[in-house]
Amino acid sequence: MNSQACSAVKRIADSTVRRLSVYLRFLEGSTSRGQSTISSEELAKHGGTTSAQVRKDLSFFGSFGKRGLGYAVPELTESLREILGLQRQWNVVIVGAGKIGTALAQYHGFKSRGFNVVAVYDTDARKIGSKWEGHVVRDVASITSDLGERPAEIAVLAVPADVAQAAVDRLVSAGIRAILNFAPVQLQVPGDVALRSVNMAMELESLSFELTNRDR
Amino acid sequence: MNSQACSAVKRIADSTVRRLSVYLRFLEGSTSRGQSTISSEELAKHGGTTSAQVRKDLSFFGSFGKRGLGYAVPELTESLREILGLQRQWNVVIVGAGKIGTALAQYHGFKSRGFNVVAVYDTDARKIGSKWEGHVVRDVASITSDLGERPAEIAVLAVPADVAQAAVDRLVSAGIRAILNFAPVQLQVPGDVALRSVNMAMELESLSFELTNRDR
Repeated sequence: MNSQACSAVKRIADSTVRRLSVYLRFLEGSTSRGQSTISSEELAKHGGTTSAQVRKDLSFFGSFGKRGLGYAVPELTESLREILGLQRQWNVVIVGAGKIGTALAQYHGFKSRGFNVVAVYDTDARKIGSKWEGHVVRDVASITSDLGERPAEIAVLAVPADVAQAAVDRLVSAGIRAILNFAPVQLQVPGDVALRSVNMAMELESLSFELTNRDR
Repeated sequence: MNSQACSAVKRIADSTVRRLSVYLRFLEGSTSRGQSTISSEELAKHGGTTSAQVRKDLSFFGSFGKRGLGYAVPELTESLREILGLQRQWNVVIVGAGKIGTALAQYHGFKSRGFNVVAVYDTDARKIGSKWEGHVVRDVASITSDLGERPAEIAVLAVPADVAQAAVDRLVSAGIRAILNFAPVQLQVPGDVALRSVNMAMELESLSFELTNRDR
């Protein structure tokens, strides 16, 4: 990887990062099928984009592949894992031991990519202390001292909307640096904390909007 | 609502539609708190944006509110529901009776906004015929005839990546017009089918990317 390119990484669009994730998945499949090289056309086809876009996406991070020969699968796989920060383990806490939290804790797609759930928190006295997906649910009030003993970088927030901002404030002051939010509310975080939100009902509302306005 | 504005709706950005959903949620809360008017500043604060952006977002759809008086909560609530297509019920099928499908079927945020799960499908012979969240799991092979009898507009796709495109092709030919995809793969749909994808592992990878490249 070209270190000069890395200094420009902050300007990379979300859509580019998503495509890198898609390319990586396809490359991992290619590895398991025993394929040693891959063309930008193949990556494009599976990434739902064009080969020019594939080359542009990769060019942000250095020089990969050879004209006419394509990309070496093991090297490009390794580079994409490095770019995406997947060559290390990330410790993840889940805040909110409800239904969505359960599905996420069971989701093997996390662990296989180096995201380790190290603790689960709730505020409900009936849940605190109970066993839950291999973890004992802990009181969210203990999160600061817990993270002091066993740091985690990422929090998955699956709590009701009306308590989400308070939970975020607590997580940030406890040292969490990235939050994946499933609460249906817009959250405020300091500029040095990464935040992404997933809202299932709002995704359906976007579809409803498209269906409705297309019909007019 | 101004009908001239509606003809321009196709150019509305996803980010605008998402904010409309956020405003609507806050307005519904305002209604239950007995508040009769609301300012663009209040909406902006809860939508994580500026009052100018609130006014711009709403201006796409007509003329709302009065300078210095703000917006009438009941009227703006009704208008946003109309804009988002939430004044009707949408029939939803869930394809894939696994863990994510389970969490989604139980998610009361869907039903309360008019998204009715009418059927659940799987390809696993051990699941077909079993009771699942109040539905009998049906064979995905029967989806075309089922939708002929009881139409549905939206499919939630929670199947493994390697069978997702085949499932989408089947859904589209059976008449589904909008798909919310949870499979970790890029899907191809005809231009008249709306598609949104949610990929939990890729959301975490975006956070990992941000954390990694910020540290360099």
